[in-house]
Amino acid sequence: MSVPDTSAVKAFLLDLQQRICEGLEQLDGKGTFEADSWKREEGGGGTSRVLTNGKVFEQAGVNFSHVTGAAMPASATANRSELEGRSFEAMGVSLVIHPKNPFLPTTHANVRFFIAKKEGADPVWWFGGGFDLTPYYPFEEDVIEWHQNAHDLCQPFGESVYPKYKKWCDEYFFLPHRNETRGVGGLFFDDLNQDGFEKSFEFMQAVGNGFLTSYAPIVERRKDTEYGEKEREFQLYRRGRYVEFNLVYDRGTLFGLQTGGRTESILMSMPPLVRWQYAYTPEENSAEALLYTDFLKPKDWLNLDE
Amino acid sequence: MSVPDTSAVKAFLLDLQQRICEGLEQLDGKGTFEADSWKREEGGGGTSRVLTNGKVFEQAGVNFSHVTGAAMPASATANRSELEGRSFEAMGVSLVIHPKNPFLPTTHANVRFFIAKKEGADPVWWFGGGFDLTPYYPFEEDVIEWHQNAHDLCQPFGESVYPKYKKWCDEYFFLPHRNETRGVGGLFFDDLNQDGFEKSFEFMQAVGNGFLTSYAPIVERRKDTEYGEKEREFQLYRRGRYVEFNLVYDRGTLFGLQTGGRTESILMSMPPLVRWQYAYTPEENSAEALLYTDFLKPKDWLNLDE
Repeated sequence: MSVPDTSAVKAFLLDLQQRICEGLEQLDGKGTFEADSWKREEGGGGTSRVLTNGKVFEQAGVNFSHVTGAAMPASATANRSELEGRSFEAMGVSLVIHPKNPFLPTTHANVRFFIAKKEGADPVWWFGGGFDLTPYYPFEEDVIEWHQNAHDLCQPFGESVYPKYKKWCDEYFFLPHRNETRGVGGLFFDDLNQDGFEKSFEFMQAVGNGFLTSYAPIVERRKDTEYGEKEREFQLYRRGRYVEFNLVYDRGTLFGLQTGGRTESILMSMPPLVRWQYAYTPEENSAEALLYTDFLKPKDWLNLDE
Repeated sequence: MSVPDTSAVKAFLLDLQQRICEGLEQLDGKGTFEADSWKREEGGGGTSRVLTNGKVFEQAGVNFSHVTGAAMPASATANRSELEGRSFEAMGVSLVIHPKNPFLPTTHANVRFFIAKKEGADPVWWFGGGFDLTPYYPFEEDVIEWHQNAHDLCQPFGESVYPKYKKWCDEYFFLPHRNETRGVGGLFFDDLNQDGFEKSFEFMQAVGNGFLTSYAPIVERRKDTEYGEKEREFQLYRRGRYVEFNLVYDRGTLFGLQTGGRTESILMSMPPLVRWQYAYTPEENSAEALLYTDFLKPKDWLNLDE
């Protein structure tokens, strides 16, 4: 295994956090990010940057963290017993954005780098990450554009990259108890190291950089769409699904909560306001029903299989 | 093991659901319960009764279910391998009440009966249940009265019963990632069978019947307390903890969601409206701060240890 250049990854991540926050502030036009730096007892720490009550964004959180530990957490070695007992180093940027306007989709992105180390042995490292979109009132052209952007950034790394990570994303962001995907997906990858450090790092950078260039045009295009109480209520209701997914299924969230991560940074992903309504079903043929029937299932948005 | 009278348990549970719903309607004075009956593919079903937008209760859900299955779920036999492969029958009433007024506590109660069966062997059965209180602006006298009622209903079953189940409740309804109890507790018991069917069933009935007689006086006393936006906002914020507990830790919720239970009945426990706020901390010495410092930790409310 090639030796990873950890400091280059860290520099990229810090710069990415900065660029994304600047880009979001520009899109918002009013809100600004506040930063909290924190330390972790076992080693390392991070900086959480949060924008609340913006003009466009009800809440946007962009986390950077770089943590170290003396022993790999059990949950991380369940399927990789060869890594048991190794020390580890993990760094990443992760973000969740909850816009105000129900015609703007919620979105999540994450890029991360993990190294498991042992005295006298080569370090084992890998990259992971991705981004995905959770619309309430989706525009089909936006979803196609989102996937086209994801596709295009994957192309230099091989024909099979987009289909593989698009499928992984659909499978990961799925709520079995609702039989729905969390949204319309995007990319999800993990355990990436097979092409060597340089190539893997390049791909992670492409995903990290590709997030805002894919999300910003959708925000620009839809942020002034008029909406009323009905749309707001539906958005708040659907945000409940986001909570359900993150608290019941999301490995990153559960891992963080169960290993003494900084709770406020982990739960920055929670929407600022959420509604649950017993036995709600959308009216037939309504815009709300369309979300369920046409969007919340895995779809070949780019017609690649034809 | 004595042979359990399943039909007597079922009759009690159905009657309990009915009496609790009637009692809550009376307390509310406006809202009424609507009922949904449902069937479960693997066997059995239930009736969910929900009151929404009452005068006092923003939402109250009272579930009855009676389900059967050909094989004990893996999660139920993890610590009891002797029950693996047995068929099972489970019945219970569970309820969650979210009042409107922030001076009224949210509450939860549950009583349940479980039997694991095998051809040619005695059935293995047990009772479980309890009730607990989650105030936002607690009145100490209400909390003491709540625990006094819990204590008194336990007394006929032995001196050690209340302390044991009070402690279990504090331990079960705990959020490690917040280092807070969910509320001020009450009773929690499980695996109850050691005193034989009659005695165990009697205790379960005492808990089931004791719930409303303990909760109703608090509602009567506090339901007209005046409140403003500040108290409402704090209530919505604290409801987030309820969501966090139920979705991350509650065994019943996770078991239900992961074994194809009826999602809407399980998630009836979710509050109708919830807020999250990044890095919120209450003002020092405020009424809100008092909740954290004086109530959200295990306490000997009845001074039994003195």
